[in-house]
Amino acid sequence: MTNPSLLILPGDGIGPEVMAEVRKIIDWFGAKRDMTFDVTEDLVGGCAYDKHGTPLHDDTMAKAQEVDAVLLGAVGGPKYDALDFSVKPERGLLRLRKEMDLYANLRPAQCFDALADFSSLKKDVVAGLDIMIVRELTSGIYFGEPRGIIKDGNERVGINTQRYTESEIARVARSAFELARKRGNKVCSMEKANVMESGVLWREVVTEVHQAEYPDVELSHMYADAGAMQLTRWPKQFDVIVTDNLFGDLLSDLAAMLTGSLGMLPSASLGAPMANGRPKALYEPVHGSAPDIAGQGKANPIACVLSFAMALRYSFDQGAEAARVESAVEKVLADGLRTADLLGEEGVTPVSTTEMGDAIVAAL
Amino acid sequence: MTNPSLLILPGDGIGPEVMAEVRKIIDWFGAKRDMTFDVTEDLVGGCAYDKHGTPLHDDTMAKAQEVDAVLLGAVGGPKYDALDFSVKPERGLLRLRKEMDLYANLRPAQCFDALADFSSLKKDVVAGLDIMIVRELTSGIYFGEPRGIIKDGNERVGINTQRYTESEIARVARSAFELARKRGNKVCSMEKANVMESGVLWREVVTEVHQAEYPDVELSHMYADAGAMQLTRWPKQFDVIVTDNLFGDLLSDLAAMLTGSLGMLPSASLGAPMANGRPKALYEPVHGSAPDIAGQGKANPIACVLSFAMALRYSFDQGAEAARVESAVEKVLADGLRTADLLGEEGVTPVSTTEMGDAIVAAL
Ligand SMILES: CC(C)[C@H](C(=O)O)[C@@H](O)C(=O)O
Ligand SMILES: CC(C)[C@H](C(=O)O)[C@@H](O)C(=O)O
Repeated sequence: MTNPSLLILPGDGIGPEVMAEVRKIIDWFGAKRDMTFDVTEDLVGGCAYDKHGTPLHDDTMAKAQEVDAVLLGAVGGPKYDALDFSVKPERGLLRLRKEMDLYANLRPAQCFDALADFSSLKKDVVAGLDIMIVRELTSGIYFGEPRGIIKDGNERVGINTQRYTESEIARVARSAFELARKRGNKVCSMEKANVMESGVLWREVVTEVHQAEYPDVELSHMYADAGAMQLTRWPKQFDVIVTDNLFGDLLSDLAAMLTGSLGMLPSASLGAPMANGRPKALYEPVHGSAPDIAGQGKANPIACVLSFAMALRYSFDQGAEAARVESAVEKVLADGLRTADLLGEEGVTPVSTTEMGDAIVAAL
Repeated sequence: MTNPSLLILPGDGIGPEVMAEVRKIIDWFGAKRDMTFDVTEDLVGGCAYDKHGTPLHDDTMAKAQEVDAVLLGAVGGPKYDALDFSVKPERGLLRLRKEMDLYANLRPAQCFDALADFSSLKKDVVAGLDIMIVRELTSGIYFGEPRGIIKDGNERVGINTQRYTESEIARVARSAFELARKRGNKVCSMEKANVMESGVLWREVVTEVHQAEYPDVELSHMYADAGAMQLTRWPKQFDVIVTDNLFGDLLSDLAAMLTGSLGMLPSASLGAPMANGRPKALYEPVHGSAPDIAGQGKANPIACVLSFAMALRYSFDQGAEAARVESAVEKVLADGLRTADLLGEEGVTPVSTTEMGDAIVAAL
């Protein structure tokens, strides 16, 4: 049997630092659990642009299509802000999502007990929070045509198109219902059906899929603006939230911030099953490239480590091993180890990025 | 000299109840301050649909164009959920905004000291909060064409178009800069320029207007997802936020919820100056029609009362009289009067909608 294959794309800013810690975990699995991954590393984002003049080289794209799972760090930085839209670091990430057809973006927003004080929300509002946002990731206004900046008479006009087909909505709705069955059995779908026809269709199709295939799951609908409010007011009312690409972008970031510890949150982007039965998959932390702290040993590697745990669970069907990694993370937190983003309490032990990685390996 | 004219559109749900209290304030101004308004009342939303088969009759639209200011309660309710998109209650509101060309929607998010405990956020995060969201209100994906649900082969496809012209962006940017000069002199503009070309144009035009006309104001830019995060993390970093119609919808609701007292927040929607120099204007509370509590005397009339205060300030140049209304509201809160939405603390006095209105009049 061949080893499972991983493509690692550390990217920009703190990406390489946090990914270096994940490499330690991967090595540990090879040495101690007889799970060896064939790892290749490559460039994405600003560093790919620096080398190739494009944020994602065609060869890298081809590799991503072949491996069992892609692990990405983060992309972007002020150095690239002035670049033309078409070669911005983000385009590399968006191309991966689109060409791998990773339509279901899973973004858990979990509040770690040891860190509940970090939230700007009251402790009782967030302690024990555990919601899953399922964001459609390959369509909507991110990719719709026509798009661009055109001239209309004397004026420039900026245009983007939100476009959702029935099957695009149905497949991500299925992902949400499937997940809900393994969790709290509740899905809340969010759109602006009161204002947008694409939202009207979204609501219709989610309802149809529910009635035909998942009548046992509890389904509710909410306008996305009310959703933003309710997430802020009492987030524990939700179990699984399913929403489109753009609303999902805002709402998942909002949900992440509720937990108070952005440096802790992983994500999985999943597509259709490949020939080997594994879904196309890309895993990445929710946080960005944080150029302001890059290279200083301040970055928290946990989000990236937990993204690898998601890979174990969703790509390699190793739920128990995923839980092992998650428990190791909980243990080091309970032991009081904290990277720079989590300092502030009394009696904790400040650690660097690499010290945190080493501690997690030790806890495994 | 003729009296200033007001068109009052109570709308659905709690709209009529809260507007009845505003009528008392308006009457007080006639009797005690020699400021008599010529008031007409009419229908909008579900009640207009019930009577006319349309959520906004052409005659009502014509009146709205003629008066000095429109005061609206709220629209919508479950009774109308199944209506066709084109006659939903919301279409009445959207038609008013569009045909009156009310491009600048001012949504203050203020945290009242007496109510800071109501927020789901920690007190130090929200106490003293005072930000102003300026939302573009007549363009973007709310109104762009093409739109609708079409058939593509066997599939339904939902389509909406985000479309912003240079002049649409420039005029709302000017509104934001003007407001900032009277406040903290800071504007943060939010879009998704990393993903959407309409966001790229938005950022360019805001920057051009800033450099050419408002170099004295401090301008920053933020991606809208990061904006949602930062509003949650530390909202006091902001003074004025300017953003598009859809992002503004979500972000202003989020900001409103931070304050913990949605029943307190007014809004103004302003257009170009009319022949008499006054801007076209519509004022409405941020809260919705709350059909679940309608008709029970539980609604908080303060948001609607403060919307009238905004009318005094922005339409009738009566800043001192607006402040008088605002002080009266602060006084009744300091006296411990609370409508049903604000109960929970010790030692407060529960009051009904009408009792709250009467108390504000008494405090004037
Ligand atoms: C980096 C950017 C293109 C991306 C997005 O908008 O999807 C990010 O915000 C995210 O949520 O993954
Ligand atoms: C009622 C609805 C059409 C409206 C909107 O989406 O603009 C509301 O949410 C608002 O923010 O005023």
